[in-house]
Amino acid sequence: MANFEQGCAWAEGEYIPVGEAKISLFDWGFLHSDATYDVAHVWQGRFFRLADHIARFEASMAGLRMSIEQDRAAIETILTECVRKSGLRDAYVEMICTRGLPAPGSRDPRTCRNRFFAFAIPFIWIADLEQQNVGLHLAISERQRIPPEALDPRIKNYHWLDMVMAQYDAYEEGADNVILVDARGNLVEGPGFNVFALRDGTISTPARGMLEGVTRRTAIELAERVHYVVVERDIPIEQARDADEIFITSTAGGIMPVTRLDGRPVGNGLPGDATMQLRGAYWDLHRDPAYSNGIDY
Amino acid sequence: MANFEQGCAWAEGEYIPVGEAKISLFDWGFLHSDATYDVAHVWQGRFFRLADHIARFEASMAGLRMSIEQDRAAIETILTECVRKSGLRDAYVEMICTRGLPAPGSRDPRTCRNRFFAFAIPFIWIADLEQQNVGLHLAISERQRIPPEALDPRIKNYHWLDMVMAQYDAYEEGADNVILVDARGNLVEGPGFNVFALRDGTISTPARGMLEGVTRRTAIELAERVHYVVVERDIPIEQARDADEIFITSTAGGIMPVTRLDGRPVGNGLPGDATMQLRGAYWDLHRDPAYSNGIDY
Repeated sequence: MANFEQGCAWAEGEYIPVGEAKISLFDWGFLHSDATYDVAHVWQGRFFRLADHIARFEASMAGLRMSIEQDRAAIETILTECVRKSGLRDAYVEMICTRGLPAPGSRDPRTCRNRFFAFAIPFIWIADLEQQNVGLHLAISERQRIPPEALDPRIKNYHWLDMVMAQYDAYEEGADNVILVDARGNLVEGPGFNVFALRDGTISTPARGMLEGVTRRTAIELAERVHYVVVERDIPIEQARDADEIFITSTAGGIMPVTRLDGRPVGNGLPGDATMQLRGAYWDLHRDPAYSNGIDY
Repeated sequence: MANFEQGCAWAEGEYIPVGEAKISLFDWGFLHSDATYDVAHVWQGRFFRLADHIARFEASMAGLRMSIEQDRAAIETILTECVRKSGLRDAYVEMICTRGLPAPGSRDPRTCRNRFFAFAIPFIWIADLEQQNVGLHLAISERQRIPPEALDPRIKNYHWLDMVMAQYDAYEEGADNVILVDARGNLVEGPGFNVFALRDGTISTPARGMLEGVTRRTAIELAERVHYVVVERDIPIEQARDADEIFITSTAGGIMPVTRLDGRPVGNGLPGDATMQLRGAYWDLHRDPAYSNGIDY
């Protein structure tokens, strides 16, 4: 029997251990990064906002003119089965569509059959619980995030080299992670996360250039529920430096406090009250049937 | 015995038929397009400017802070062996370095062991000989190429979604392929090729934002040898429309004439004299030992 201890993947119609999950070297999903994906998570045996992730995945595929034979229900079944087979109670669950392989000798993407992959692996944290208790130290990079004029960031994509190179720069400054900017010096996003800044009771988050994260949306909903004013707008670097609180949001960790920016403390240098209130509310939501659904292991 | 008729790949220390060449679904080369590559070609049993391609590949790896155990000589041996095993006299030969897999649960690229892949497959033409006799019909896209402020284009990379989406738009206009622009409306490059425009005896090619192609460099060298003035400078869209001749350059096809731009003829609508002269000189160079080296099949 297959060993799914490290996680379970689905490829070409089969459930396989993650160590065996491979993609053709010639799939344009690799050779041209011509692919889209989405990541949902399972917490304590329940999917969180799975329908929202699958809906965004379908919108991303449509945006790239891709289609697969699996409909929404079939995708959900495959993802659920990956989690069930792995037995994981806390999981990081990814769905992927690649362009596929072109006809021999062709460079025309229209000759490709698009391909679907999925996997469930143990939950991944952008910042582990210990880091979250202290708060993250982020650097603001001078490097620009790939702009919407080149690639619509709402289509979730693997074009991450700008972020990876910015990460290396941040490590050299002693930071844990990095935020990239746009051409006008406004914050955009970091590798796999959105950014929020609170100042004088108003919470701001970038309005453009970034992925419209499901955790970002959840944070906005939760903040409005407890009567914060939330504004989607440009955040210039200097305003970020003046923030009372900063937090980041990601499926890979939820709502996480940032307590240092380029080596300087954010506010009083401790995880902020609003941040911690929203973080608690975020994890509470994982038991709410309106936001989550249980897996029958 | 393995069947290398469709080509030969090298992965994890083994030569394998291309149909079996795969990469882990979890390699960041795929999941973050965190990879670099280079493509050389073999024509009539001889590598063309292989040392230049390997040197650029090494510069790209250094730029991404990657390293592999293979030195220049070992890379050359592997590429040559891929061609020899395939028996191909005309081949498209790619070398790839991926970030690899991070430590379990980590998102830190420094925990990855970088990986090397290579393959030789039958030669690929951006435009086949029939298309080259007529000349290509290119569209100029409104979509911007990913800018250097996000990602240094001299590091050859798989971030192609901007180009793929521009290609789809071009197909709808009835064009064969597409040229992308920068934020100021200057031509940059197309999917896998550089662009040149000739006007009043002067040849211009973009100076920034694009890959510094080996075929581009060869075209510049050849043009200067026959006393054309070659200028690396911005080419605004309207100047491209006024060109007497336009051609593109790529390892996948050499120097290829463009005879229509957005449905309108370039010059007199026929492949240009300078273009055809340079194309001939380009293919002649493939027998020159200063530019090519024979493979001992």
